[in-house]
Amino acid sequence: MPRYKLTIEYDGTPFVGWQIQAAGVTVQGALTDAVARFTGEHVHVQGAGRTDAGVHATGQVAHIELSKDWRPDTVRDALNAHLRPRPIAVLAAEKVADDFHARFSATGRRYVYRILIRRADLALERDRAWRVLRPLDAGAMAKGAAHLVGRHDFTTFRAIGCQAASPVKTLDRLEVETVAQDFGSEIRVHAAARSFLHHQVRSMVGTLLKVGEGAWTPDDVSAALEARDRTRCGPMAPSAGLYLAEVRY
Amino acid sequence: MPRYKLTIEYDGTPFVGWQIQAAGVTVQGALTDAVARFTGEHVHVQGAGRTDAGVHATGQVAHIELSKDWRPDTVRDALNAHLRPRPIAVLAAEKVADDFHARFSATGRRYVYRILIRRADLALERDRAWRVLRPLDAGAMAKGAAHLVGRHDFTTFRAIGCQAASPVKTLDRLEVETVAQDFGSEIRVHAAARSFLHHQVRSMVGTLLKVGEGAWTPDDVSAALEARDRTRCGPMAPSAGLYLAEVRY
Repeated sequence: MPRYKLTIEYDGTPFVGWQIQAAGVTVQGALTDAVARFTGEHVHVQGAGRTDAGVHATGQVAHIELSKDWRPDTVRDALNAHLRPRPIAVLAAEKVADDFHARFSATGRRYVYRILIRRADLALERDRAWRVLRPLDAGAMAKGAAHLVGRHDFTTFRAIGCQAASPVKTLDRLEVETVAQDFGSEIRVHAAARSFLHHQVRSMVGTLLKVGEGAWTPDDVSAALEARDRTRCGPMAPSAGLYLAEVRY
Repeated sequence: MPRYKLTIEYDGTPFVGWQIQAAGVTVQGALTDAVARFTGEHVHVQGAGRTDAGVHATGQVAHIELSKDWRPDTVRDALNAHLRPRPIAVLAAEKVADDFHARFSATGRRYVYRILIRRADLALERDRAWRVLRPLDAGAMAKGAAHLVGRHDFTTFRAIGCQAASPVKTLDRLEVETVAQDFGSEIRVHAAARSFLHHQVRSMVGTLLKVGEGAWTPDDVSAALEARDRTRCGPMAPSAGLYLAEVRY
């Protein structure tokens, strides 16, 4: 059976998350339905990772198997036609080897978290970023972030229900970028690792916000990490600012 | 009566345009209602320019007069509170002299038009850009655009119902910028002038698209301009890609 790798963009706002569940519209469910309308087959849409409700993707990856040998561009265009009007788009479809697995073959994931610092509500970027009212010290946030890069036990930054076998992960990159805006400013946090724990990026960003506000020092991040204690984590950043930007193979 | 200059952002998608009209929700109407809820006064919200249905703003400007001498930040925050949940945000409020007029004092307007070139539907940028399926020659578009810069009779690029006294305008800037994207690419057209005719930017962008597709040469733009004939204009670009980015005083 031909196997296809799909690269997918979505606005996470109207979905209860990636993964099919008993109630609510999911990204995985919408893709499964689109495949069924296209080929009549009920396939398993295997994602590289599950995103939570409200989390966006500009580069999620999934794989599917179809019984017929369709041209990849036909798969892309047909799925997009059947996904309308849901805000999910298949950016690319490629034929891949039978042993390609969207989740288990992945060698790296990259997320971007967007914080908009301004007094006014978000009109054009509503549900697309975390709006924060007061200025943040991006330099202090970057120092705090540096403490988290490397191989650590990330228990502090892990959801209670996280199903990962081990809390030990290697964080390859956690960078704080400042982007000028006409009114206010934007901070983007870039995070890359082979894999992440559940809620890890949002937990790290929420903690870095404490540093940016001056409530925590950069060294407090290090102390929280070493405590391996979920209660030492800062408040988790909201889902609307998070984007799964890339999955590497 | 204290006069306030408001700088305003909005998502134009749910509005029938800036200007209050008999039917439909307008940006001007929503702002008028927000002022009424804030101070109890029914004021005239004077905009720098009218935007059409679906056109966005990141820097629209309006002025209002209030009977009480409010702190500008209070005006901004109170209006934002009363504008919710509509996608309109007052980015800044400033007190200005009594002779400041949002429309007549303006010395320049700047628009940005966004074109996304890709096969896939827009998920995150839906209603935020014009999605075009085939590659465009940005270099040819830039050459065509150069023919329009300067003082000209823009009758070809003017809406039939345009109420401007004269079709002669001075276009200060019409630049074609290419922005890299992971999938496909983006072209941004930047337009600046003291003032524009109705539909002028969308008419110019639609015409430049013909050049980008190779259907017109850059010199055909010059011929269309010189013809002073609305029927010689390319198809008008859709409203969703247009942003009123700045008004100068």
